[in-house]
Amino acid sequence: MSLNVVIIGAVALGPKVASRLKRLAPQAKVTMVDRDSLIAYGGCGIPYFISGDISEPDILRETSFYMVRDKKFFRGAKDVEVMTRTEAVAVDRAAKTVHVRNIETGETTDLPYDRLVLATGSRPNRLNIPGVDLDRVFTVSNLNEAIRIKELVAGGQVGQAVVIGGGAIGLEMTEALSDLWGVETALVEVQDQLLPGVVSPIMAHMIRHHLAENDIAVYLSETVQRIEDQDGAWQVVTDKRTLKTDLVVMAVGVRPSGNLAKEAGLDVSPSGAVVVNARFQTSDPDIYAGGDCVENLHLVTGKRVYFPAGSLANRQGRIIGTNLAGGTEEFDGIAGSFILKAFELNTAAAGLSLPRARAEGFDAFSAFVVQGDRAHFYPGMELMYLELVVERSTGRILGIQGLSGQGDALATRIDAVAAILKYRPTVKDVSNLELAYAPPFSAAMDILNALGNTAENIMAGKNRVIEVDEFAEKFERRAEDGCVFLDVRGQANAEPFTAKYPEHWVSIPQDELLDRRDEVPQNKELILICNSGVRSYEAQVMLDEMGFGPTLNLQGGMGAVKKWGLDIV
Amino acid sequence: MSLNVVIIGAVALGPKVASRLKRLAPQAKVTMVDRDSLIAYGGCGIPYFISGDISEPDILRETSFYMVRDKKFFRGAKDVEVMTRTEAVAVDRAAKTVHVRNIETGETTDLPYDRLVLATGSRPNRLNIPGVDLDRVFTVSNLNEAIRIKELVAGGQVGQAVVIGGGAIGLEMTEALSDLWGVETALVEVQDQLLPGVVSPIMAHMIRHHLAENDIAVYLSETVQRIEDQDGAWQVVTDKRTLKTDLVVMAVGVRPSGNLAKEAGLDVSPSGAVVVNARFQTSDPDIYAGGDCVENLHLVTGKRVYFPAGSLANRQGRIIGTNLAGGTEEFDGIAGSFILKAFELNTAAAGLSLPRARAEGFDAFSAFVVQGDRAHFYPGMELMYLELVVERSTGRILGIQGLSGQGDALATRIDAVAAILKYRPTVKDVSNLELAYAPPFSAAMDILNALGNTAENIMAGKNRVIEVDEFAEKFERRAEDGCVFLDVRGQANAEPFTAKYPEHWVSIPQDELLDRRDEVPQNKELILICNSGVRSYEAQVMLDEMGFGPTLNLQGGMGAVKKWGLDIV
Repeated sequence: MSLNVVIIGAVALGPKVASRLKRLAPQAKVTMVDRDSLIAYGGCGIPYFISGDISEPDILRETSFYMVRDKKFFRGAKDVEVMTRTEAVAVDRAAKTVHVRNIETGETTDLPYDRLVLATGSRPNRLNIPGVDLDRVFTVSNLNEAIRIKELVAGGQVGQAVVIGGGAIGLEMTEALSDLWGVETALVEVQDQLLPGVVSPIMAHMIRHHLAENDIAVYLSETVQRIEDQDGAWQVVTDKRTLKTDLVVMAVGVRPSGNLAKEAGLDVSPSGAVVVNARFQTSDPDIYAGGDCVENLHLVTGKRVYFPAGSLANRQGRIIGTNLAGGTEEFDGIAGSFILKAFELNTAAAGLSLPRARAEGFDAFSAFVVQGDRAHFYPGMELMYLELVVERSTGRILGIQGLSGQGDALATRIDAVAAILKYRPTVKDVSNLELAYAPPFSAAMDILNALGNTAENIMAGKNRVIEVDEFAEKFERRAEDGCVFLDVRGQANAEPFTAKYPEHWVSIPQDELLDRRDEVPQNKELILICNSGVRSYEAQVMLDEMGFGPTLNLQGGMGAVKKWGLDIV
Repeated sequence: MSLNVVIIGAVALGPKVASRLKRLAPQAKVTMVDRDSLIAYGGCGIPYFISGDISEPDILRETSFYMVRDKKFFRGAKDVEVMTRTEAVAVDRAAKTVHVRNIETGETTDLPYDRLVLATGSRPNRLNIPGVDLDRVFTVSNLNEAIRIKELVAGGQVGQAVVIGGGAIGLEMTEALSDLWGVETALVEVQDQLLPGVVSPIMAHMIRHHLAENDIAVYLSETVQRIEDQDGAWQVVTDKRTLKTDLVVMAVGVRPSGNLAKEAGLDVSPSGAVVVNARFQTSDPDIYAGGDCVENLHLVTGKRVYFPAGSLANRQGRIIGTNLAGGTEEFDGIAGSFILKAFELNTAAAGLSLPRARAEGFDAFSAFVVQGDRAHFYPGMELMYLELVVERSTGRILGIQGLSGQGDALATRIDAVAAILKYRPTVKDVSNLELAYAPPFSAAMDILNALGNTAENIMAGKNRVIEVDEFAEKFERRAEDGCVFLDVRGQANAEPFTAKYPEHWVSIPQDELLDRRDEVPQNKELILICNSGVRSYEAQVMLDEMGFGPTLNLQGGMGAVKKWGLDIV
């Protein structure tokens, strides 16, 4: 008897399981069941379909060789049966059947299985407020919804939009609506920063500044109270304001779809995720689950974490396919790799951000470096902004985050660290990470190596730093505190600041410090300033040696200040 | 008494040692000695200065904050003394002095040292043939030479050029002369492929094809016999032809400058490299060496290897600086990361190429994948070509090489593998490597993961492959051998081939194989063809199941064939 496998869910994980299994065990009978009419589409591409980067929804359903992945495709190319518009109502584990119902005809059937795969994915969260069910409120959770949004936008029916939620989907949708279509878009986030948990408040502030430069109104720390339809004029009411709108995108996260599993008596986590072992078996060894409906071991914390991602679903689907065919493959865990394009700024991350590391109980600090993404003399070089999160006592790398206008170049650095996270690297591993070098692609001392070096210098107490937000506070309080900003850049860079703030801003280029030591302010706290934090670090060492201080080095220098959006001259 | 350190050599390694040491031990007295008048320049930028991407030579001498790194800079910014145009003639280890001579005045001095650092770098190889000393023959080994080449080119004195050597510098110089200046350039390489040792013959062939598309004449397996000056008309004579030229670039590799060390009685390798331990101490513990004058442990082979690179010199310089200040830092070894831009094609590598792996005694095979570098539906997606070199018995990753028009995207994949090489990864680690995913940057199943998967399928005997060069041979011999090329792409893709080669080319789209099994040629060797090797792999599994064969799957499919330059329709 050949193996009979039923897969519930036909986006990302499900199709991958089916394809891999059939390649290893061509005799296996495989049936995929999905509620939706459209299956096996690239859900992560939805914002780019709405933005217009992708013209037709079918493009998201195509393989890389441009065949639409429909029932016919799966039958012919994969020898896999697909039942669309079909809901899995219940699993009878004793009888080994799935009770399914055709959503259109109401017809029900019991599908027998030898092995069952739960690829039920996630469901979008919806705020528990009045108005969430209005027909102009979307969660962007499936392709049919995306098609409807695009019809509205392309039909000229959306002049204003409100995006609720400042996570990845919220930011992508903000760009999608605003950049090409010119929709006047506001973004409301209940927490006090964008991308909470993913990046530090400082990087989040830089992203917010970039959105502001692109005419996006961002409202942080605001709670949406209701959404109203007043005779075809919609509005979003927060605890602080009322925003008129023609479209609401509710992107407030997703939660695992674990109900079917729970009702079948399988172990489910407090957050509703199906509990699986490293081979993706649930508490019933004949039932597997993976993708957006399970939690995964985090390689840094060693704890289970919910991290839905289409790429993860694909890789896990392959492992499940292998194991269904008799394999014993295990999944290590996740590094939490993340990348996002929002207008001309890209954000990427792996591992833990500083706030999350501290919330997990690590005694963590972060190094922040601003440097060119390739040789500083090579045309097309752009500044990159990287933050490395480090455990203070051990130098262990806990995470990395970055911003850059050149996303592929940013991915290079983030992915290299993501790749080694499972090996518990330390700052020395980052200092010596061997990126391929040629001037068009990297610097002889690449920003990633410089980042490791900076972290090491901070750990050693040689580089004593303040962050850009602390700088902003100190600058604000300069009259009361009496600190002095010692600008060690060239005279021309410093001049506008010394002219405007003669009592608090002093210019001595780093290479003249030895000769001009008499000019260094005495008995003052010195905040050392350059464009990147590098020359000011050199200055700090020299000033230590000469006996001046206390000194603090502004991490990332004026490059960080500018990106942060503080305009003081 | 403060530490007195003398550093011989003031490019890359030397300045880094000096800077790091002074930051850790500001009291140290540091003197750098260099033969040249120009120091601390970015030598790797020379091709881009010659090409015109960089306008002035001083740009290569600048820091990232645009200060020229001259003697004055080192004195002011680093408190480091520099003696230029000064040759280190001999080291007296007993007396702990370096005997130096001013090249301009002839004056000699003995510099005492507590610790000595040999940053003597490399010297360009010169062929032992008549004419190498002609004034139109350059090795591009220092900035003064580069300035002279650019004067000639920009002065309109170079209509034709010959580059001898198809390694990285040779290829960079070929583009530099040809692309902007329009110099008619020929490249002569003694071995039978470009980038010998770095990439496989197949990738090298693809690079050669790209050069041909850019009107570069490439002559492989040719030995230059002499260079002649016939009254101001120069020519390069090989064993096969005579090439008229106005300029000769001799880029036939470099060798470590270990003479000074050898004469001082220090251990030197057979290749002339200074022998150092993991802390970069020579056989005299008071003398350190690093950068281009030493060999390094290769992380894959475990053997010492010569791998000169500016990035390596910078990272090693920092370690030496740390150790001079009392540290005990060690260097792991090198992954051999490499990247190169030549016209619109970028080449990158880490670890061993297939020929080199085999030469090192590994039972190695390679997987070759052609896939988009981001989601196939995202605008700007380009095909990437990756080759993974694997030890057959263990699945251990020995190396990776790749080609792409988008260099940063290529670096992302190569660097991620370079980063893990020291942990002895296997194909499963590559299959599950967690690259940050969003459609603008990667595919849900990224090409790197697909590459690991393909390697695993080959190891498992599921995917039985031929390379594009074998395909070319089989295609050539199709009449004698009687094999059939079974094209499993869509009808439209296959049609031109079936029309032109009706007896040898058969079209059955992969998704129609089950229904059209009667049309599959019987008792023939079937060469399975698609655009990338993915659908043809699926076809291979199906044909195995149906009992057809033997079958061979063309790795990389017609994508590889096209890139390789074989034009059969």
